[in-house]
Amino acid sequence: MALKLSYFQTRGLGEPIRLLLADKQVPFEDHRLSRDEWPEYKPKMIFGQVPCLISGDEELVQSAAILRHLGRLHGLNGSNETETKFIDMFYEGIRDLHNKYVAMIYQNYENGKEPYIKNTLPEELARLEKLFHTYKNGEQYVAGSAESYADYVLFEELDIHLILSPTCLDGTPALKKFHERFAERPNIKSYLNKRAAINPAVNGNGKQ
Amino acid sequence: MALKLSYFQTRGLGEPIRLLLADKQVPFEDHRLSRDEWPEYKPKMIFGQVPCLISGDEELVQSAAILRHLGRLHGLNGSNETETKFIDMFYEGIRDLHNKYVAMIYQNYENGKEPYIKNTLPEELARLEKLFHTYKNGEQYVAGSAESYADYVLFEELDIHLILSPTCLDGTPALKKFHERFAERPNIKSYLNKRAAINPAVNGNGKQ
Ligand SMILES: N[C@@H](CCC(=O)N[C@@H](CS)C(=O)NCC(=O)O)C(=O)O
Ligand SMILES: N[C@@H](CCC(=O)N[C@@H](CS)C(=O)NCC(=O)O)C(=O)O
Repeated sequence: MALKLSYFQTRGLGEPIRLLLADKQVPFEDHRLSRDEWPEYKPKMIFGQVPCLISGDEELVQSAAILRHLGRLHGLNGSNETETKFIDMFYEGIRDLHNKYVAMIYQNYENGKEPYIKNTLPEELARLEKLFHTYKNGEQYVAGSAESYADYVLFEELDIHLILSPTCLDGTPALKKFHERFAERPNIKSYLNKRAAINPAVNGNGKQ
Repeated sequence: MALKLSYFQTRGLGEPIRLLLADKQVPFEDHRLSRDEWPEYKPKMIFGQVPCLISGDEELVQSAAILRHLGRLHGLNGSNETETKFIDMFYEGIRDLHNKYVAMIYQNYENGKEPYIKNTLPEELARLEKLFHTYKNGEQYVAGSAESYADYVLFEELDIHLILSPTCLDGTPALKKFHERFAERPNIKSYLNKRAAINPAVNGNGKQ
């Protein structure tokens, strides 16, 4: 079934989905809407927003629902309930951090960036680092040796935070190693190389 | 396995979980933390927050992860991928509305309540009403005839909005009927009767 992902030209909420599809070599149309085209598309979207994944005649919106759907389809959702619920919880924790990041980027960049980097971020990263140690076997991925959709979200979250603050992972060695290792996965590496040529904005307002 | 749900005394993010457990007659300890006890518990929580569901020696935080976990355990997560992803998307849509509600309640109640009721709410409810019609067979639940965890979240979301604005569902008859019908489920009805005796606050700041 031909897949189409509609999102803006930015990385934003679309990027973890793109990373997952690229890594799993799932062919998809990477439909990137310009801001000029948006008024035409907005009324067609179930909640008036993107990302939207179209598969045949089925439309799925909500970035989290898209990620979990692809997770189930591609063996990235844990192999038992203990793993599945852990992956879900980890993902939701990243999302709480992302919401703080987004609030700073869009509503308080000038005054909020430095306090965010100094106070909010270290505390949030320390929590994720601790949780990352839960699965001792390998510590390769969020759920130890089991790959999951949360890995793509974690990778992107760390990646955009390294743009914000290049030293931000120095206090969280497991997350830092995860980020380095993940960037070296062959399919991720070749996606990142292709992306570098386009160099899309991280966020809709150009701040990063 | 004995279950324990830790949350505050309010309804908040804990209430849809309590509704689900009550409706499915799952015995659980309804552990309600007072604000005085919170400083002792906060450092023990994985992300420093509640709700937290404890089952044996496994701890699960993040309200959404808890709901989906219970959904999978109790046959409330759809019976095929098409249903599962729809339920997930619907739930995420309710959550977007809830985030707007929470922002108004906590940050802009005095000036924001009326514009929220007049402008934000009708548009959001109209979207949910439309989506509620997707499954034509019965239109009993979010996913038609299939019960799901999203039903508890939708019920609670409509319920708290009826407190905010008693006429808010007049323009969305399917949601209104869903709310009425759901309140009559025997286990929900008896839970709501018991709850009325305690009359917990809807939100942490007492606004509603
Ligand atoms: N909860 C939704 C939020 C989607 C969202 O906020 N989309 C933004 C872009 S990141 C959007 O479509 N903005 C344009 C608009 O609202 O008109 C999700 O996770 O997919
Ligand atoms: N994303 C989390 C958010 C949890 C959350 O915001 N919990 C609040 C109560 S609704 C809390 O624990 N507040 C106390 C605190 O942060 O110290 C979830 O969905 O469970």
